[in-house]
This record gives sequence, structure tokens and C-alpha cells, in this order.
Amino acid sequence: MPARCFRCGGEAGRYYLPHMRRMICRDCLVDFYEKKVRNTVLKYGMLRNVNTLGIAVSGGKDSMALLRVMKRLFPTLSMKAIYIHLGIPGYSDECEDVVRRVCGEMGVELIIHRVSDEGYTIPDFQHTPFKSRICGACGTVKRYHLNLIAYEHGIDTIATGHNLDDTVEVLFELYLRGEVDEITRIRPVSPGVGSKMAARIKPLIEMTEEENLYYVEATGTPYVESWCPLVKGSRMMRRKELIRMIEERIPGFRHTFFKSHVKRFLPRLEESSKQVQLRECEVCGMPTTSNICSYCRLRSRVLRAVEAYGKTGA
Amino acid sequence: MPARCFRCGGEAGRYYLPHMRRMICRDCLVDFYEKKVRNTVLKYGMLRNVNTLGIAVSGGKDSMALLRVMKRLFPTLSMKAIYIHLGIPGYSDECEDVVRRVCGEMGVELIIHRVSDEGYTIPDFQHTPFKSRICGACGTVKRYHLNLIAYEHGIDTIATGHNLDDTVEVLFELYLRGEVDEITRIRPVSPGVGSKMAARIKPLIEMTEEENLYYVEATGTPYVESWCPLVKGSRMMRRKELIRMIEERIPGFRHTFFKSHVKRFLPRLEESSKQVQLRECEVCGMPTTSNICSYCRLRSRVLRAVEAYGKTGA
Repeated sequence: MPARCFRCGGEAGRYYLPHMRRMICRDCLVDFYEKKVRNTVLKYGMLRNVNTLGIAVSGGKDSMALLRVMKRLFPTLSMKAIYIHLGIPGYSDECEDVVRRVCGEMGVELIIHRVSDEGYTIPDFQHTPFKSRICGACGTVKRYHLNLIAYEHGIDTIATGHNLDDTVEVLFELYLRGEVDEITRIRPVSPGVGSKMAARIKPLIEMTEEENLYYVEATGTPYVESWCPLVKGSRMMRRKELIRMIEERIPGFRHTFFKSHVKRFLPRLEESSKQVQLRECEVCGMPTTSNICSYCRLRSRVLRAVEAYGKTGA
Repeated sequence: MPARCFRCGGEAGRYYLPHMRRMICRDCLVDFYEKKVRNTVLKYGMLRNVNTLGIAVSGGKDSMALLRVMKRLFPTLSMKAIYIHLGIPGYSDECEDVVRRVCGEMGVELIIHRVSDEGYTIPDFQHTPFKSRICGACGTVKRYHLNLIAYEHGIDTIATGHNLDDTVEVLFELYLRGEVDEITRIRPVSPGVGSKMAARIKPLIEMTEEENLYYVEATGTPYVESWCPLVKGSRMMRRKELIRMIEERIPGFRHTFFKSHVKRFLPRLEESSKQVQLRECEVCGMPTTSNICSYCRLRSRVLRAVEAYGKTGA
């Protein structure tokens, strides 16, 4: 007996949603996905006061799904895609091609920034103490540039493609280590501060990796299938594997944990969390909590490595 | 090459401590264990203001380890063991025998209370809505009687054998469900309230199940090896299995999670937790937060089941 779609009852049940233990057909998946994302966006007031939305795109399934679904749900909203070229040989160019193609098809303006313009690439971090935490360093680089580009291009809010799996992986680590202040920063919406720090929204924060993958496939949206070559064997990957294993034993684990975080812990922990005082970085002038921002510290580190070992990336 | 003890370097490394990835010999294990428990007791001020300590004993490895180690570490402290006979056929009598033997050998006064004196046994809960949560109901019965016996016998503080695994299993569930108020009740020391609610301490809260097992074996302390026949297939057992699986992938998971709970979350969550108001139960007069205490409600439920189906246990 062919699997039936749980929504329309049609025979073409094609995609499996493990947390719901249901099959769904292609058309219903697209509709179901878009309604769910709209629901998340409205529930958390993500587009409140947004004039121009920046969409952070990497070429992967999550950000390609994000670009597509936001354009479909909010066609009249002013949007600009932002791509940070990280200088990872082969991979970064392939991602740029896909991003250019999708933005072209959808008629979305694309802003590209190359970190190599600043004299280094992400693989250069392999010669720094950040070698074993390269994904963390890369995250800082991307966050910094997204924010800087937003400031330079009049973008007040940045949407990123963080999905439920990413979020739960980070939360698991933070709850385990008791990083109570860090925990309060993991949220669907982070308001902006002044003109130099854009607001951040995560419209896909309640969507699983599978759902994002199904959506790009069902809508025929191009995306880069391969993983970043630097991510292999990282702690992040091992943690995601662990989360999948827990989910197999506690179906709905990711959704339950996320909901508890947002509804139960966040309000209680925010009550007692101390307000951070922002000032301007002495080097670049962007907002920071210390004298020199974490990006400028990273950058001076990697530039020293480039000087000592030569350039690695492209 | 024979495994060497990591403490004395002797050849008789016999017990494996997985969270430390070390082998240890019998004599060193006993010494190591007792120092660790003393450290926990002192660190949390567990014996501050204690006149007479009640030791809750079930006959299992944890409570037998507790009785032995407390007697060894604090030989002059006034102690009374408390055994609640739950009326589980075969099992409860076997446990009573072991408890009697150990208390006799150690010269500790033993107080025994039989729930059958009140007209029911734990297996009778199988005919109530608590059927699938029988371990929870049993927990309420035990907590209530321990407290009542303490009140009747001038015991101001009760020590229980909860180990690290028990604690982490409960915490995992509470953090997952976001039970923020319940979380603040999981702690090494719970102060008493008035004369009718004894203080509670958990001297083994930082000891793993393996460590307790090794200690009773290394000291030749009798204990009941079999599990309670009612516990099989319970959610509690499945969760413990899951915790073991996580520990395999994140060595030290239990210790890290517990430490984060006590040092990071507890202080923050307590700040914003509301004070509960205690009053006297209209039925039994013991402390409760509602009109009738949860034990009296349970008891009336199970007595109705006994009336309808007859007695199950022994």
C-alpha cells in the first residue's frame, strides 16, 4: 500500500516528518512549510519595525530555503541578500555561483563581501590557536561582516537560516556547561542597538534540518549539497549526531527542549541577567563590550599567521 | 600487563571509574570513596545543626553504602535507620532481612514502618490511575512516611541515598520539560520547616551508581542485588539508559551537568522562584501546599481500589 499524505490523503506521501511520524506529499509539504514559517515570523513579531531586511545566504539548504520562503511570504518587503565569501578553496566559489543564480532568479539584490580583501581567508585560521575551533572563529567573522554590511547598506534587520537542529545543538552545550548568560542570547529575535548593531531574526528557528531540505527540494531551489570541508570531525558535528540519537529515543526532543527554553527558561533567566554595556571598538569603531572587539582581535591574530606562514585559502 | 591502581600504583587495579578513565584497587577505592563523601557532606554543610539523623534505607546498594559510609565517617553522630516496608511480594521481605542484618552488624537502631498497616500495599496502585506512574506514587508514599516517622521519633534531618545518576536522570527530564520551579527543589540540602518537616540531605549526590556498588562490594556490605519488580520498563529506566549513552559520548556528562545545575542554574532560578506557603493537611495535619496533602489524596485513591479489587500485595 503506498504511503498516503497525512494532509490531503493523496497517494503521493513522499516526505517523512519524523517528529510528527507522518508522510506528506510535495504540494502539501510546500504549503505546510510556508504556513509554519509565517506562523513563527508572526508569533515572535520578527518583522515589526523592519524597513530593509538583509538575508544572510551561504548557498546551503537552510539559507536558500530562507531566501525562498521569505520572498514568497513577504513579496513586497525590501530585501537584500548578503553573501560572505570566506576564501575556502573550491567551496566558497561553488557557493557564490549558487547564491548568484538563486538571487538572479528571484530578483533579489545580492551584496558580496570577500574576506580575502582584508588579507586573510578562513583556512588561514589553521595556523592560529583557533585551529580546533575554526567554526567558532568563522562564526565571529560572519557575524561581524553581516553587521558591518547592514550598517553600510541601510539594512536594519538581518535574517539568518539557523534551524531548530543548530539551535538545539548550541543550547545543549550551553545548558550542560551552565553558561547562563550565553543562554539568554539564544532567541528568535535579538533587537538592534543604535545604528551600528542590526536586529537579528531567525525565521527558521522552529524548522528542522529535514524540513528545510525537503522545502528546497520540493520547490526546485538550487543549493550546495556538500558540507564545508573545514567542518569535518568538529565538535558541532558530533553534538548534532548526539541530538539525533536522543531524538530517536525521545521523539519531539528538539521541539520540546526549544519550547522549554523560550517559554520557561528565557523569561526567568532574563529577569536576573545583567545588562551589557556597549562601547565602540578602539580599532574599527563597531559596538563591543571590551576595548577591542572580538573580530579585531581575531583578525590581528590571523594576519600575524598569514605573515608567518603565507596565505592558505583562495 | 596487569592494570595498576592510579592512586597507590599497586598491581591490583580492580575497579574501573569510567568518568575518570582510571583503575583503582580495593583499599584505595574505599579510602577514595569515603573522602569524597566527606567532602560532599562538608562542602554543602549537610550536618550543620543536625541532632539526630534518620537514614532512609531500602536494602539496595545506594542506601546500604550510605548507612555504612555515614557510620564510618561520623561514628559519634546519633543515627537511626528507617525502613518503609512497601508490601511488594517477596521483594519487600528480602529487603527487610538485609536491612535488619546490616543495622544489627553496625549497631544502628532500625525503625520499620509497614504501609500494609494502613490497608494497602504498593502493588495495589496497579488498579488506580497511577498504574503507569507507580514509581512516582511510591516516591510520594516513602517521602511522606519518612517525614512522619522523623516527626514521631525526634529525627530532625533525613539522609537519603540518591546518587548522581538518579539526580541527573530527574534533572534531564525537568530541564527538558522546563519545570523551572521543580528544578529548584533538586538540591543537596533542603532545609526543614518547623517541627513537622524534617531537613533532607543527599550525601551521595555526587557519587555515581558504579561508585556506590564498588563501595558496598569492597567493604563486604550486604545489599539486595535485584531491582524492584515494579520498576521494569519504566520511563525512569529508559532515561537512565539514555544518560549512560550520553555519558559514553561526553565523558563526565553527569558530573558537568550536575555542577552546572548547582553552581549556575540554582542561584539564578532561586532568585525568581516564588516562596511556597505551607499549611496543615485537613486529613492528617502534616505540612502541605493545598487543603489535602498529596499523600492523603493518593491514599484515598488506593484504598478505594483495594475495596473494589481486593488486596494485591503482601
